[in-house]
Amino acid sequence: ILNKRIAVLPGDGIGPEVCHEAIRVLEAVAERFGHKFEFEKYLMGACAIDATGNPLPDETLDACLEADAILLGAIGDPKYDNDPSAKVRPEQGLLRLRKSLGLFANIRPVTAYEVLLEHSPLKNDRIAGADMLIFRELTGGVYFGEKGRTADSAYDNCTYSREEIERIAQLAFQAAATRRKKLTLVDKANVLETSRLWREVVQGIAKGYPEVAVDYLFVDNAAMQLILNPKQFDVILTENMFGDILSDEASVIAGSLGLLPSASVGKLVSLFEPIHGSYPQAKGKGIANPIAAILSAAMMLEHFGLQEEADLVKEAVQYALEKKVLTPELNSHSPYTTEQVGTFISYCV
Amino acid sequence: ILNKRIAVLPGDGIGPEVCHEAIRVLEAVAERFGHKFEFEKYLMGACAIDATGNPLPDETLDACLEADAILLGAIGDPKYDNDPSAKVRPEQGLLRLRKSLGLFANIRPVTAYEVLLEHSPLKNDRIAGADMLIFRELTGGVYFGEKGRTADSAYDNCTYSREEIERIAQLAFQAAATRRKKLTLVDKANVLETSRLWREVVQGIAKGYPEVAVDYLFVDNAAMQLILNPKQFDVILTENMFGDILSDEASVIAGSLGLLPSASVGKLVSLFEPIHGSYPQAKGKGIANPIAAILSAAMMLEHFGLQEEADLVKEAVQYALEKKVLTPELNSHSPYTTEQVGTFISYCV
Ligand SMILES: CC(C)[C@H](C(=O)O)[C@@H](O)C(=O)O
Ligand SMILES: CC(C)[C@H](C(=O)O)[C@@H](O)C(=O)O
Repeated sequence: ILNKRIAVLPGDGIGPEVCHEAIRVLEAVAERFGHKFEFEKYLMGACAIDATGNPLPDETLDACLEADAILLGAIGDPKYDNDPSAKVRPEQGLLRLRKSLGLFANIRPVTAYEVLLEHSPLKNDRIAGADMLIFRELTGGVYFGEKGRTADSAYDNCTYSREEIERIAQLAFQAAATRRKKLTLVDKANVLETSRLWREVVQGIAKGYPEVAVDYLFVDNAAMQLILNPKQFDVILTENMFGDILSDEASVIAGSLGLLPSASVGKLVSLFEPIHGSYPQAKGKGIANPIAAILSAAMMLEHFGLQEEADLVKEAVQYALEKKVLTPELNSHSPYTTEQVGTFISYCV
Repeated sequence: ILNKRIAVLPGDGIGPEVCHEAIRVLEAVAERFGHKFEFEKYLMGACAIDATGNPLPDETLDACLEADAILLGAIGDPKYDNDPSAKVRPEQGLLRLRKSLGLFANIRPVTAYEVLLEHSPLKNDRIAGADMLIFRELTGGVYFGEKGRTADSAYDNCTYSREEIERIAQLAFQAAATRRKKLTLVDKANVLETSRLWREVVQGIAKGYPEVAVDYLFVDNAAMQLILNPKQFDVILTENMFGDILSDEASVIAGSLGLLPSASVGKLVSLFEPIHGSYPQAKGKGIANPIAAILSAAMMLEHFGLQEEADLVKEAVQYALEKKVLTPELNSHSPYTTEQVGTFISYCV
């Protein structure tokens, strides 16, 4: 029986709605197994800018540091996206949070769901059985390098240290060793020096995992292979920006971005969040898919060592998929609301 | 009646084989229309390193500068890819060529071919009718920024100047104005300063093209939208690295990377090349698809102002597709060789 304090950062757009359902599911789990989960909400993103001028208020960061885990909805608002001169942005909050918590590894599982094959834009025989785990480096690279303007130009610097690569590569190899024993490093080593360092470090670490077959793909080729033949992938390891692009792209295998959860781990507290964004157009309409957030909560349960509980949540999601208790993007015929999907899944656990 | 000197850089892997067929098609066109095309071959890439130690010998660059157009096969060799410490690389030759010739805009058309729909991994109703033109910036960004190592890390710097963005954006808007009047800028303006400069410059230029609808997509979202709903795109404008990734990814719409041509234009001579790589595993086997190289030759004809000739080549390719005179990746049942496909197409022009 566990006692856990969970900091919740609902964020912007559909973030609050999907977090709400993930919390309900976690509460149902707690009740059924006798755990005690405490949830406290904090501001981050555009909502934090509106309220405090700061996308990551100190209070939020402090609360995250003291929590046992963090549940994040999504952040982002179009009013900042189309204003290239905005000085304060919601994304800065998320990036500073990742950096401050040392969340260097973002783990994104992607699976093809049998019952959703018809929803994928990909032909079913290409994706049936696809099951991969993307390890995206999360606190280095061009996201965090020096950036700025000179008179007539702009720059973004990308750097990676050996240690930054090593620590996530170790996690990815460990994961591959417990799975189908294949790891694919995605880089652009024919052009980028950072990619050559990635390849060098990974070649070194690979020696310690003789049972894991290692493959190297250039990112342009990987973006194509992911669609041509997704079943070839087991664990994908890649740097921050490439991981951002490839994991969103890979969502077409699952059938909807609204299904994909993630866990971000590091040295301190871990964070769980859907990979989808704040989807502002859908805000408040009850059409946001809460499953990615709910599966992120399941990853949190696994992280707590509660495998049985996590499995139960995943089965409940599976049941919602089978019974088509789904939001409009996956069930245009007789759609359910965000809340109804959350209710159904929490009843099932 | 035209007299043109074409510098041919066959390059590595399957480069020479596909160039050979493109030249035969151009010769057939010349004969039929009374033009005179002279072809001269020069070294670039791994073959140039092997022969001279330099991936872009001066002789090659000089010849390119004096030619009316350049036909390039492909460059790259795995012996360099897996050696992160190699000092000289085939890619340096290509990048230096692009830079020296000022080839700032790489134009990559992507179309879904009706007769090949079955070969795409995408469901046919998603792609039938898709037809886009990708404008990839080719001489700036992280490919050309300062790169190197410090004691325990590596770096790659990305910079873009206003002028670098303006000149390709103008071309992209002009193209959009003659097509379906939609332009999508792909960037990561919520994180990158260079992307914010792209957005700023494009917003400015857009004012001069009130008839063109402009859309802004983050690259992660674009990588997903390209598969979910490729028909939404008309002209895509993006920076070097994103263009590399997205155009390879978009090849799944056409059904094979072996079908996609490109034209690189700038202030001096223009260059025409298939977007596929050197595919070393296929070298000398007669299985390489020459159509991307042949369609690149058709783009060269258009560039020469020979629209009728270019259309004829495109019709001949269409005929090869219909008659299934195709290499194994598109016709596994009764495949034709690289040379047979080239022969068929040159007979048809
Ligand atoms: C919101 C944005 C900064 C973020 C990222 O690019 O990391 C998002 O796209 C993600 O993938 O988590
Ligand atoms: C070979 C490589 C340097 C090149 C690039 O990335 O530009 C290739 O992938 C391309 O797309 O032309």
